[in-house]
Amino acid sequence: MTNPFAVMGTVMQTTSPSSLSVAELVLAVGADGVILATHEAGTPEGDAVMADSTHVVRLRPDQRLLPGMIDLHIHAPQWPQLGTGLDLGLEQWLFANTFPLEARYVDLSFALSVWNHMVPTLLAHGTTTAVYYASIHEEATTALAKACVAHGQRAFVGRVAMDHQTGTPEWYRDPSAADGIERSRRSIQDIRDVDAGAGLVQPILTPRFIPACTHELLEGLALLAAEFGVRVQTHCSESDWEHQHVLDRYGRSDTTMLAELGLATRHSVLAHGNLMSDSDFDRAAAVGAGIAHCPLSNAYFANAVFPLRRAMERGVSVGLGTDIAGGAHPGLLGQCSVAVTASRLLEDGVDSRLAATIRGVEGSAIDSVTAFWLATAGGADVLGIPAGRLEVGCVFDAFVIDLNGPQSPLHMWPSIDSDQRIFEKIIRLGSPSDISAVYVQGRQVVGNERRTDGDARK
Amino acid sequence: MTNPFAVMGTVMQTTSPSSLSVAELVLAVGADGVILATHEAGTPEGDAVMADSTHVVRLRPDQRLLPGMIDLHIHAPQWPQLGTGLDLGLEQWLFANTFPLEARYVDLSFALSVWNHMVPTLLAHGTTTAVYYASIHEEATTALAKACVAHGQRAFVGRVAMDHQTGTPEWYRDPSAADGIERSRRSIQDIRDVDAGAGLVQPILTPRFIPACTHELLEGLALLAAEFGVRVQTHCSESDWEHQHVLDRYGRSDTTMLAELGLATRHSVLAHGNLMSDSDFDRAAAVGAGIAHCPLSNAYFANAVFPLRRAMERGVSVGLGTDIAGGAHPGLLGQCSVAVTASRLLEDGVDSRLAATIRGVEGSAIDSVTAFWLATAGGADVLGIPAGRLEVGCVFDAFVIDLNGPQSPLHMWPSIDSDQRIFEKIIRLGSPSDISAVYVQGRQVVGNERRTDGDARK
Repeated sequence: MTNPFAVMGTVMQTTSPSSLSVAELVLAVGADGVILATHEAGTPEGDAVMADSTHVVRLRPDQRLLPGMIDLHIHAPQWPQLGTGLDLGLEQWLFANTFPLEARYVDLSFALSVWNHMVPTLLAHGTTTAVYYASIHEEATTALAKACVAHGQRAFVGRVAMDHQTGTPEWYRDPSAADGIERSRRSIQDIRDVDAGAGLVQPILTPRFIPACTHELLEGLALLAAEFGVRVQTHCSESDWEHQHVLDRYGRSDTTMLAELGLATRHSVLAHGNLMSDSDFDRAAAVGAGIAHCPLSNAYFANAVFPLRRAMERGVSVGLGTDIAGGAHPGLLGQCSVAVTASRLLEDGVDSRLAATIRGVEGSAIDSVTAFWLATAGGADVLGIPAGRLEVGCVFDAFVIDLNGPQSPLHMWPSIDSDQRIFEKIIRLGSPSDISAVYVQGRQVVGNERRTDGDARK
Repeated sequence: MTNPFAVMGTVMQTTSPSSLSVAELVLAVGADGVILATHEAGTPEGDAVMADSTHVVRLRPDQRLLPGMIDLHIHAPQWPQLGTGLDLGLEQWLFANTFPLEARYVDLSFALSVWNHMVPTLLAHGTTTAVYYASIHEEATTALAKACVAHGQRAFVGRVAMDHQTGTPEWYRDPSAADGIERSRRSIQDIRDVDAGAGLVQPILTPRFIPACTHELLEGLALLAAEFGVRVQTHCSESDWEHQHVLDRYGRSDTTMLAELGLATRHSVLAHGNLMSDSDFDRAAAVGAGIAHCPLSNAYFANAVFPLRRAMERGVSVGLGTDIAGGAHPGLLGQCSVAVTASRLLEDGVDSRLAATIRGVEGSAIDSVTAFWLATAGGADVLGIPAGRLEVGCVFDAFVIDLNGPQSPLHMWPSIDSDQRIFEKIIRLGSPSDISAVYVQGRQVVGNERRTDGDARK
């Protein structure tokens, strides 16, 4: 029996939030893009897979194969303002910059120009799965799903629903709750038609956040989620302002309200969660909702560092998100570094005028292994998809990183670099110019075979 | 009269910590690499310079010219461990990882392999001036100065002096204070010989930090600084540990001791300063010593965020440093982003369980303009060199950044991007793959003319 695709090389991945695995492996990938078998390289089983595969890739000794990264929180229409306006407060940032930009996606040709720049750029950063907020526009949203299929990115795409009279501008909102619900219903169907059973792109219900939505809209979207069995994404307790807004409006926490409404449910993606309490974490864990931790964005819009280890210790699923454009950097390798850095600042504290003993929050620091786990397996667990791991039964979503590229700081030095160090360097120094190939569901979507040892059969 | 070199294009630079300047200019550069004149493009004066220059460069509309960046704090021998070991405490990091690596530079061929990878890589990141700690080895230190000359990087290179019996391992220290002083004296002369009056590379006296040095060594180095008129670099109040160490040893603050010893003096570079008090800042300002702010490294080794705005408000000169390898990222564009991010975390605080009113330190936040000012003019002011600004009398140290590179997130969008936004994008999204040319002292050291509109004369 001939297997369609096999890859042999050094695989680096995290097997838990605290375990790094490095192994010379042969992976056999089926026609459906799912990993059929993994064997140690050089074993008879491994050799047999390499011999029996139609298409084989042998990584060079200076290449590493890692699971593709899962970005749990991207505002796709904000791509053109990536990197800008971050000195503004949230309200000004939204009303003066962001909503006017999002409103432009009524123009489909503008939307296409952005999607066709953003999706391949994110793939080149190793983002094999993206969870997107689109805009309120059905056409632009469907076009985003199509762009993901065309460029080969796994994605969850959500038409943004928002109808609140004071929480949104009248020129960028659903005209009514009923309209918002109906448009979200149609968008689910449109995105399912785009995917046509390929399993690459799925709809996700996307109430922007409670402050932007009427109670009627929130209830209607929860019913749609149950009716269609689709996931939900929204923001939750991102900042002092948002957290307090929901408390004032409902007398309950954001998490409690979202759970009661049926919007924080199994595999819901709650973005940020910085102000969530321990009981909020317990509630999220109980309903199976996960958190998209967006550490760079948080430094600008969340008023505090997300208490990541506290959330994980209470059993909440957590993955990483860029929060483009609130987080001014694409791709998750950079976000891993920021996650570690932010956790260290929470651990040690920031104000040098305070005594060291009371400055920080002990037990907050994470390391690169935990960060990469969040960016891969952690994100997959939030979504409940068989990804983020290079093991049997998971999709072959992966990227190849080259060490020792010309003038790259990602460089191996003889007799210095252990596997652990090489891993750390990849996380902290890897950039798209070091990523020579990206695969989604077994299909190569970035790079070409020329940059590996090719597909010559043994 | 024919002028040797002229460049025309859009120049972006900061003229103060809060002012961005964007202008279409013609710059005339003399044979000595110093800017002779600047004119608005399209004026008769500008046209005359372009017509009368032997070699002209016209930037494309999608290119920007910015002043080269000045990295005030790099541990050159730590380059091979960039990105690794950051989960260790400072003592373990130094004694288990860093000192053993630095000790290897007794091997000149190893040193050369590192210098010849590091210097061009940093130039490719736009670092036109580097202030280096080398190792304790004279040969490796001189070789670093030679590598800077060969690759065309402006640099201050210091042989590290360290002789303390408990603050350093016996296998990596100067055998005595007298030896340390003599070796530092010879190294000054060797580096001056390497530069041979070209003005590109200078020696800088480098007592590692007070904990690693005996009083005798510190005093001897201060005398050398006065004798030779060379600058001094050292660490100052980086962390709780270092700050307390000096208090315990001398009963005075690090800054006070360095000033009294004559090591914190005019244009001295004090790295970090996170635990400096207001009176320490006043002292530094009074003696004219500046601070190398290294925000990324600080998150790992300094136990607090540097109170940057407080230091600047008290009149201290501040620039940026990567603190390679404590700061796990080369180049200063990334460090600018981290500086802004860290300042925001200090402003808002980090512990979400505290009330917002007591969580952070109001008045701490900076923006991208301030960060880039630190990376250019601020660093030049710390060092007291005519650089960091593209204006008459300054050296032509500069880099060209391309907008709209293939799959670069650094992308201009029609009818969205103002000059301010483009500047923010360059700071936050620019990477070496977007930097098409780098100039030091009028000489192109990265890229080639092919990537601009060429040197065709009008």
